[in-house]
Amino acid sequence: MRLAVIGATGAVGTQIMRILEERDLAIDELIPVASPRSAGRRLPFRGGSVEVVALSPEIFEGVDLALFDVSDELSLEWAPIAVEKGATVVDNSGAWRMDPEVPLVVPEVNPAVVHERPKGIIASPNCTTLAMVVPLGVLHREAGLKRLILASYQAASGSGRPGIDELWDQTEMVVKDADTFRDGTDGGDVLQAGDTFPHPIAMNIIPSCGSLKEDGFTSEELKLCLESRKILGLPDLRATATCVRVPVMVGHGVAVHAEFSSPITAERAREILAAAPGVELQDEPEKHIYPTPLQAAGEDPCYVGRIRQDPFDPNALEMFCVADNLRKGAALNTVQVAELLF
Amino acid sequence: MRLAVIGATGAVGTQIMRILEERDLAIDELIPVASPRSAGRRLPFRGGSVEVVALSPEIFEGVDLALFDVSDELSLEWAPIAVEKGATVVDNSGAWRMDPEVPLVVPEVNPAVVHERPKGIIASPNCTTLAMVVPLGVLHREAGLKRLILASYQAASGSGRPGIDELWDQTEMVVKDADTFRDGTDGGDVLQAGDTFPHPIAMNIIPSCGSLKEDGFTSEELKLCLESRKILGLPDLRATATCVRVPVMVGHGVAVHAEFSSPITAERAREILAAAPGVELQDEPEKHIYPTPLQAAGEDPCYVGRIRQDPFDPNALEMFCVADNLRKGAALNTVQVAELLF
Repeated sequence: MRLAVIGATGAVGTQIMRILEERDLAIDELIPVASPRSAGRRLPFRGGSVEVVALSPEIFEGVDLALFDVSDELSLEWAPIAVEKGATVVDNSGAWRMDPEVPLVVPEVNPAVVHERPKGIIASPNCTTLAMVVPLGVLHREAGLKRLILASYQAASGSGRPGIDELWDQTEMVVKDADTFRDGTDGGDVLQAGDTFPHPIAMNIIPSCGSLKEDGFTSEELKLCLESRKILGLPDLRATATCVRVPVMVGHGVAVHAEFSSPITAERAREILAAAPGVELQDEPEKHIYPTPLQAAGEDPCYVGRIRQDPFDPNALEMFCVADNLRKGAALNTVQVAELLF
Repeated sequence: MRLAVIGATGAVGTQIMRILEERDLAIDELIPVASPRSAGRRLPFRGGSVEVVALSPEIFEGVDLALFDVSDELSLEWAPIAVEKGATVVDNSGAWRMDPEVPLVVPEVNPAVVHERPKGIIASPNCTTLAMVVPLGVLHREAGLKRLILASYQAASGSGRPGIDELWDQTEMVVKDADTFRDGTDGGDVLQAGDTFPHPIAMNIIPSCGSLKEDGFTSEELKLCLESRKILGLPDLRATATCVRVPVMVGHGVAVHAEFSSPITAERAREILAAAPGVELQDEPEKHIYPTPLQAAGEDPCYVGRIRQDPFDPNALEMFCVADNLRKGAALNTVQVAELLF
């Protein structure tokens, strides 16, 4: 099997390369693809190394599977070229996710739809959707999901390397200027927004992720709601969200309020989630055990904890979900989809 | 008027002293009170200075008004002593807030109840409640609040100076160890929890604030819900919350989902909030204008923005609120309550 990784040197692409190393996909040839700037670099892979090539139609010749992690624009242009050359595409951008002819796949939730791909393209969900949709899928099968009210805590790396760099540079600046920042009240006059986030992200939170769309919702908020509906096969799910960027490197969190068709206790939810593949239950708050991004970073599962029944609605649960946005939230899910095919 | 500030050298006490400087309360004598360790220190005040005295029953002799910012335990013990000596107490701890004989006062929302104080004690709400209850009070008068689903983003200074110090020290550690922290995946093995928060708080979020109480909810989550009911005069308000600590120095945020008895558009909500005392509307997301803690720190208003109608419920709004947890969230509200009395 010949496999190409498009965007192999980015924050997610680097993780795809790592995950392909760790797992057993039978790859005969791996082709890392990036911008001309990175072409010629050699990346270590399974004991040897592979050379980065620049994106061109020719590189897709004889490729069976192409894993894309590039911008929406690049994906819209290049995924069809890859398909035309004979490859199946698993795409991690937002370009194809809501296309009715493109399945949106989370292997733990809806693996069967991977085979219905008239365009030859399979989409992998947004990193914030993936932080919560695996545990929600399990609970939905038990009690029938009806409504979601969500608030996210999204890491800087959700915006790729530029996000990581911006948080890091600003944090260094804060530490160098203790007089301004240590009492916490003067920082707003000193710290400037960078190129990636519209406000300073160090020692701050930004209650807006992505771009502004209809009715005051952002692109990230709409993705979270619309992708959840599609993955769960619930076109009428009432879902609403507020997405917030937080000064964390890796690991997206979501505070979830979920309403179901039938009653469900926190105990029953814990029982089901403890047995669910791809989920790790961390819910012993008396021992301070619950999901945090620092613990989830670099790990595969979707962590879930702080499960409580809404005191006013026996059909509703509160919970907190965290997953590594670069791994399960992107690279790992993409590779898991590939594993469904080969 | 003789005024004593109990806990004058703490994170909130320091802000109370600053706010008393800035505002016009007619004070004849100011007595800063702290632990014996701080006694004898002189604090600047209105051009002169005042000497810190250690807490004892005698210091309340002739005091008209005592502003308390100490632990629940100290407040339970000392507030009644102050009252017995003739002072009116405005208390900022959690000790008295839910006592039916103690009014819980936010001057913009329920100023009249300040006069019903059979115990001589008036309570000021929790800092997270204050980040959202002023705008919610205004919207409640318009459309009748029925339900709240909340997710908080709480600054380290919500745990006082120890919280500030812990975030600062850990942030310095992170910056010194770029190899570990810059790619964001190994930090969980290196950074250790401190004494104040049960997990590392730098480059992390902790989905648990306060101590664990009934049914899996934390003390902060219960305060947010129960105090909102009491302040708004809505004993049957269905309120539920998830409280999360974030690596921010000052400024608590709350993602609010609010359901009302009658329909309310985002436009109408903005119109009312723009005219509301104590509230500053920051809601031009197309220009990246919305509340952030870095901007709110050191400022008086409750900021509100990102107002959207729930696409599935014309009676429900989503919004994001931020206030300085040391000022409006604590010190300022305490002083504003004092101003209702003198």
